[in-house]
Amino acid sequence: MDIFEQHESAVRSYCRSWPTVFQKAKGDHLWDEAGTQYLDFFAGAGALNYGHNPEPLKRALLDYIENDGVTHSLDTHTTAKAAFLERLHEVVLEPRGMDHKVMFPGPTGTNAVEAALKLARKVTGRDTVVSFTNAFHGMTLGSLAITGNSMKRQGAGVPLGNAISMPYDSFLEEPSDSIGYLESFIEDGGSGMELPALVILETVQAEGGINVASFGWLQRLSELCKRHGILLAVDDIQVGCGRTGPFFSFEPAGITPDIICLSKSLSGYGLPLAVTLMRPDLDVWAPGEHNGTFRGHNPAFVTATAALDNWTSDDFSDEVKVKSQVVGERLTEIAGAHPEMKATVRGRGLIQGLAFEDPSHASRIARACFEEHLLIETAGPDGEVLKLLPPLTVTEEHLEQGLDIVAGAVEKIAAGVEATEPEEVGR
Amino acid sequence: MDIFEQHESAVRSYCRSWPTVFQKAKGDHLWDEAGTQYLDFFAGAGALNYGHNPEPLKRALLDYIENDGVTHSLDTHTTAKAAFLERLHEVVLEPRGMDHKVMFPGPTGTNAVEAALKLARKVTGRDTVVSFTNAFHGMTLGSLAITGNSMKRQGAGVPLGNAISMPYDSFLEEPSDSIGYLESFIEDGGSGMELPALVILETVQAEGGINVASFGWLQRLSELCKRHGILLAVDDIQVGCGRTGPFFSFEPAGITPDIICLSKSLSGYGLPLAVTLMRPDLDVWAPGEHNGTFRGHNPAFVTATAALDNWTSDDFSDEVKVKSQVVGERLTEIAGAHPEMKATVRGRGLIQGLAFEDPSHASRIARACFEEHLLIETAGPDGEVLKLLPPLTVTEEHLEQGLDIVAGAVEKIAAGVEATEPEEVGR
Amino acid sequence: MDIFEQHESAVRSYCRSWPTVFQKAKGDHLWDEAGTQYLDFFAGAGALNYGHNPEPLKRALLDYIENDGVTHSLDTHTTAKAAFLERLHEVVLEPRGMDHKVMFPGPTGTNAVEAALKLARKVTGRDTVVSFTNAFHGMTLGSLAITGNSMKRQGAGVPLGNAISMPYDSFLEEPSDSIGYLESFIEDGGSGMELPALVILETVQAEGGINVASFGWLQRLSELCKRHGILLAVDDIQVGCGRTGPFFSFEPAGITPDIICLSKSLSGYGLPLAVTLMRPDLDVWAPGEHNGTFRGHNPAFVTATAALDNWTSDDFSDEVKVKSQVVGERLTEIAGAHPEMKATVRGRGLIQGLAFEDPSHASRIARACFEEHLLIETAGPDGEVLKLLPPLTVTEEHLEQGLDIVAGAVEKIAAGVEATEPEEVGR
Amino acid sequence: MDIFEQHESAVRSYCRSWPTVFQKAKGDHLWDEAGTQYLDFFAGAGALNYGHNPEPLKRALLDYIENDGVTHSLDTHTTAKAAFLERLHEVVLEPRGMDHKVMFPGPTGTNAVEAALKLARKVTGRDTVVSFTNAFHGMTLGSLAITGNSMKRQGAGVPLGNAISMPYDSFLEEPSDSIGYLESFIEDGGSGMELPALVILETVQAEGGINVASFGWLQRLSELCKRHGILLAVDDIQVGCGRTGPFFSFEPAGITPDIICLSKSLSGYGLPLAVTLMRPDLDVWAPGEHNGTFRGHNPAFVTATAALDNWTSDDFSDEVKVKSQVVGERLTEIAGAHPEMKATVRGRGLIQGLAFEDPSHASRIARACFEEHLLIETAGPDGEVLKLLPPLTVTEEHLEQGLDIVAGAVEKIAAGVEATEPEEVGR
Repeated sequence: MDIFEQHESAVRSYCRSWPTVFQKAKGDHLWDEAGTQYLDFFAGAGALNYGHNPEPLKRALLDYIENDGVTHSLDTHTTAKAAFLERLHEVVLEPRGMDHKVMFPGPTGTNAVEAALKLARKVTGRDTVVSFTNAFHGMTLGSLAITGNSMKRQGAGVPLGNAISMPYDSFLEEPSDSIGYLESFIEDGGSGMELPALVILETVQAEGGINVASFGWLQRLSELCKRHGILLAVDDIQVGCGRTGPFFSFEPAGITPDIICLSKSLSGYGLPLAVTLMRPDLDVWAPGEHNGTFRGHNPAFVTATAALDNWTSDDFSDEVKVKSQVVGERLTEIAGAHPEMKATVRGRGLIQGLAFEDPSHASRIARACFEEHLLIETAGPDGEVLKLLPPLTVTEEHLEQGLDIVAGAVEKIAAGVEATEPEEVGR
Repeated sequence: MDIFEQHESAVRSYCRSWPTVFQKAKGDHLWDEAGTQYLDFFAGAGALNYGHNPEPLKRALLDYIENDGVTHSLDTHTTAKAAFLERLHEVVLEPRGMDHKVMFPGPTGTNAVEAALKLARKVTGRDTVVSFTNAFHGMTLGSLAITGNSMKRQGAGVPLGNAISMPYDSFLEEPSDSIGYLESFIEDGGSGMELPALVILETVQAEGGINVASFGWLQRLSELCKRHGILLAVDDIQVGCGRTGPFFSFEPAGITPDIICLSKSLSGYGLPLAVTLMRPDLDVWAPGEHNGTFRGHNPAFVTATAALDNWTSDDFSDEVKVKSQVVGERLTEIAGAHPEMKATVRGRGLIQGLAFEDPSHASRIARACFEEHLLIETAGPDGEVLKLLPPLTVTEEHLEQGLDIVAGAVEKIAAGVEATEPEEVGR
Repeated sequence: MDIFEQHESAVRSYCRSWPTVFQKAKGDHLWDEAGTQYLDFFAGAGALNYGHNPEPLKRALLDYIENDGVTHSLDTHTTAKAAFLERLHEVVLEPRGMDHKVMFPGPTGTNAVEAALKLARKVTGRDTVVSFTNAFHGMTLGSLAITGNSMKRQGAGVPLGNAISMPYDSFLEEPSDSIGYLESFIEDGGSGMELPALVILETVQAEGGINVASFGWLQRLSELCKRHGILLAVDDIQVGCGRTGPFFSFEPAGITPDIICLSKSLSGYGLPLAVTLMRPDLDVWAPGEHNGTFRGHNPAFVTATAALDNWTSDDFSDEVKVKSQVVGERLTEIAGAHPEMKATVRGRGLIQGLAFEDPSHASRIARACFEEHLLIETAGPDGEVLKLLPPLTVTEEHLEQGLDIVAGAVEKIAAGVEATEPEEVGR
Repeated sequence: MDIFEQHESAVRSYCRSWPTVFQKAKGDHLWDEAGTQYLDFFAGAGALNYGHNPEPLKRALLDYIENDGVTHSLDTHTTAKAAFLERLHEVVLEPRGMDHKVMFPGPTGTNAVEAALKLARKVTGRDTVVSFTNAFHGMTLGSLAITGNSMKRQGAGVPLGNAISMPYDSFLEEPSDSIGYLESFIEDGGSGMELPALVILETVQAEGGINVASFGWLQRLSELCKRHGILLAVDDIQVGCGRTGPFFSFEPAGITPDIICLSKSLSGYGLPLAVTLMRPDLDVWAPGEHNGTFRGHNPAFVTATAALDNWTSDDFSDEVKVKSQVVGERLTEIAGAHPEMKATVRGRGLIQGLAFEDPSHASRIARACFEEHLLIETAGPDGEVLKLLPPLTVTEEHLEQGLDIVAGAVEKIAAGVEATEPEEVGR
């Protein structure tokens, strides 16, 4: 680990929580160089929905490489891209009544978001983009302007503009009406907010602390945008590709966004890949107006095409729902067992978590889990949420194992809480 | 090809110049679905310096995947990353007397540039970044602000700020002194330019039209920056990794930038990978202050490590020099043979080209080359430069083949130029 | 009037509502070139609180000019400026326990506001300024960024930044809590709002539609700012200098802003003059860091000094209160007499008005008043508020006269409303 | 003077150079409270071209006030405004073949500039404004963005955008071609500069150090703008109204700007007044799109109308030329007499000065002049220019007196320079 200390930048982060060197990974598990096995409730922050190195994708990938398929193609036509486009249309878009065009904006989420911002501004001729409190959309300057986290924003080193942060569904204390609030700003000619080009959101805010927008809220938002000619984009980078059950997280709300950003689990194998989907009438790009060296990453097309096999029936989605219920029940149980921990259960599908009033609880529990060889991270502006993000393909057995470890860790920290309280008085 | 027309966004670009579907690639060649073989003088816009699917890298990659090495790791420690860091230090940095820290800012060039901008602003507490006319640094909002091309810039849809474009070495007509010009702006308290945080440049502007900065110019720039406490970054994304001969393009100028951005050929296999290198005392990042889902792309670490085997001696670099000379001589010959085409030779190392007074010549020649199954693109603000970018590993035979095709295409278009001139009078 | 049509820019505005040429003015009245007398319920949009050409000020002004007092002095010391500074301290600041420093930022309100913005950013080292919905702070770029009106904002022609618009006291529908809202944005590390340098507000929004902040709201805002080290500025340009009764509009709320902007009625004679007051510890300006040609407008110092004679006792303030009550009662009566007009009474002190659900009512009533030789304007984002702004020195007789004209005009338009309703059905 | 120390902000500046309290002023002279007489070679930084309190204007002003003419009118029609518009058209615009519309943007120069910026952006739909090194256009945020001085710019506290600073005529060392430079940036599609909405300049930069643009440079600039559909604005705030001889400073260059800003000496009496003139086809303002409380300052209309009497023949202008020659000759003589002072003569008309290699010379000479009761200031980014700006109406006798004082002060400081040189060696 000295190598990292000596040669890698101080910006590295996850390695500080999980101080070991990982070597191998399969399904729900990773192994470090010492051979220790870790159960993964983190799934590459949503990039490994199908688990590590899933066999069918691996076979397709190995074949492709072995046969010297084109690796890097920019935006020339390739056989692998054609197959992906066709399969995505057939399995995902057409069955959902969508005819969105597919743009390859570069292989990462922030590229997909930056492309969405450009497109919305070009189509509408307007500047302002509305995003939401505790949103996370990426680290490049355009995406950062619509990201809520103050530490990340300050990293920009310049003021971030042309963006307005509005309260997310669960942000304000009751009985506030956050859609009504946004509506007032849009409709009042003296509000100080220009008519936005775009409203962009995550239906479940992952990094922001597992904040879930209700379907009603999403519907009202969609209608509000339609009524005012504002484009609506869903950044489904972290909670799309089945994380909440259906392929797109917005499906159960019955809305269809004008623009959709996908990345993370899109390649299905942890390989960099991203797309920006747009209603065909919005596809006003000039050729090459947005580009990027790795927008034609063919090995990722290959695994992404194979990953779509999971979506030819509802089975995969149904399984996620069953597992989600298990998680929800266990978390409720755990929270209930330790009222002194003041934890609440949050989430939808297989992104769920425990939010603690005292943010330090979450990180201490995560650390305790790591000691039991469970990888789990925290989220939220103060890291106050223990965030469960197992691979969607996690076996029921491993799911229970992981939840047991979580339960044990909560119990351990809860015991410490009681124990340390007198100490705290002493300070 | 209907699939692309139907499902892919209008933003696609290269496929319009090369209307076929590529399937397979090896070394200097690609093959389309019909089995037609194409000679590659494009090299993934600099991402394939070692050619397509080079065997030693391919073997390492297949082994890694077959053995279920960790694919996706964010910024946790992995065996593959350790190996890459160690090898990069040993083969590249240490021998050059550099102790720069390595940051993985996300797997694409624009991520590396955005990280450089953030870092420079954080370190200096200043906003302004100086870039140069005809610079190309990327498509996300921060990188776009320091990119010269007006069509790309307008794509932003918002004004781009905190950046000032200064004349590149070859931009102004003689006898102007572009360093003196920048110096005046820095030193005159009424210039309207704040003291910059950073000066960022490509030593050879690739997209901008193969504009080459002289070593003297680079040295004066480096000294100017040092004298005023301005950081200097070289974006070596397109012309690093041996494109001009040495590993870094700035080596023969005898300068050492404070910050260096690498991507494109870094993975050696066309896989997405990027790094931002920074002097150790500049590494003031807070953990996670900049992040990104695909900053730990281990298959790319594996091929990148293998690619560094090319740099253990000077042989590879020397070979590039020999080939560069061949290209330079042939281009000079071609330009000289057709004075009516008003072409000048530009470039350094294996990025060379012919700049035409009439921009349409370049695109017509490129098209004629494609008809002869040579892939070659144009560059420059008006696409006026025919840009030769063969893999560095191109065989001498193939190099001559390609140059013959270029010569033939120039001859063909030159013939047309003479032929059509009376017509033009007739219009 | 052809002269104006031929030579003056189309930007002229009030003259379109009041199509005549004014020649003479005294007290509550103006006369046009035809000798027609107009009663003034407009008072130069708050610049003529003491009426037109008040005698004591006029005498002081004539004397000063006759004796060749310095007219224009930039920021050199003059006898007239010394007298004003001394008198302002003695009559206004000291009795209120304030030791604010006085800055002459240029002679108009927007200069005073721009200076406040600069100062707050310099003191705190932060960028963001919070302003409120329907705020009006001026037309230069800095002030425009904190002004709510969308038509005015679009006039900028560039995106306006470094400012965030928050809901004013009366902006949101009940039961929303606008201070709680602002608090959430300040305190949540993921809100997307940086910690502001400054919160700036009008205690009564005049242009914005006579929106009145409650004293409780002002107190909570002041406390919130203190708790977070955010500076608080009151723009008292339109409703200071006695408009609401006391000299400063914020006095009855028991708060003392860190920065205060005054202009309009400050000179007491309609002459351009403005000041920015700041807590002494905030006075970190470097000499000349902000300047302006007319920051030493001595005739205005002379009349401003004379105007302060009104403030040596509470008599003036008490009179305003009495008249305010008269206005409030009559407006309530008028609104009550015509429920079909759906009017509500708004305001505080001698800035009061009738807000109509149908914005066209307000402009039609104002037009009808003009026909009866009463000058009265509308306000609000849709011009939906009839805004009564008589000189504070208006005689009781003239006040009643004016209110009678308003009552008659409302009656007239109300009659039309009933009459036209069937027509509207017919459309 | 304690009053100022106690109550006035630290931002005050001129009073630090001239530590006395002025009380009375007439023609070329001021008197302080002690009765000391000062000769004025400063003229309110160009606001007092006709001297202090000129009699004909004073009479017109006193009459107007005595008769209760309207003082404050916003943009309603008044008799005084009509007279001014008519007289300006008759005496200034029509004889010069100009039919520019007159806008009253507020009474100060920076208001006039901000209005010009808005208009140009609205007309063209573009953002970028080109200004020049060492330009001074005002202190509000829009004007500050096109002002060169770094200390003033930093006062903004936010990055200044949508503006690009280009080299002024005399900025670059020979043999650079600053128009050619601007042209390259406009014409090269990769320059990183968007096509500007507006180019704005002073024909003689006053605050910037008395930098004079040659007529040829102005003509080439005007042609360049025309060729590219860029609007051209001359900020004639400091050097218009006869300062260089003709009414507008650009007349001898034979160009007619699309937009012209005037203020300072426009009222002729030191009263705040400003106009923005625009070609009639550019007058696309919506009513009230730009406004301001003091845009109808009638006493200033009255004096401004009277001041135009100076422009009914060429006599006034001719007199300025004669005096200019006197100043030029004496300054050349003075500079020649003290080669050790390394001074060069700069200027045009009655704005001339001595630029010193050692900036401290200029301030020391100005201080020595003050000791001899001559008011004279310094200019330039380092205060390196002694700036002579007498009233245009200065008598020949007083002009010679003042020049004698300057000569004596230079001699005195020159003596000190020789004397202290050994000391400097000793340090």
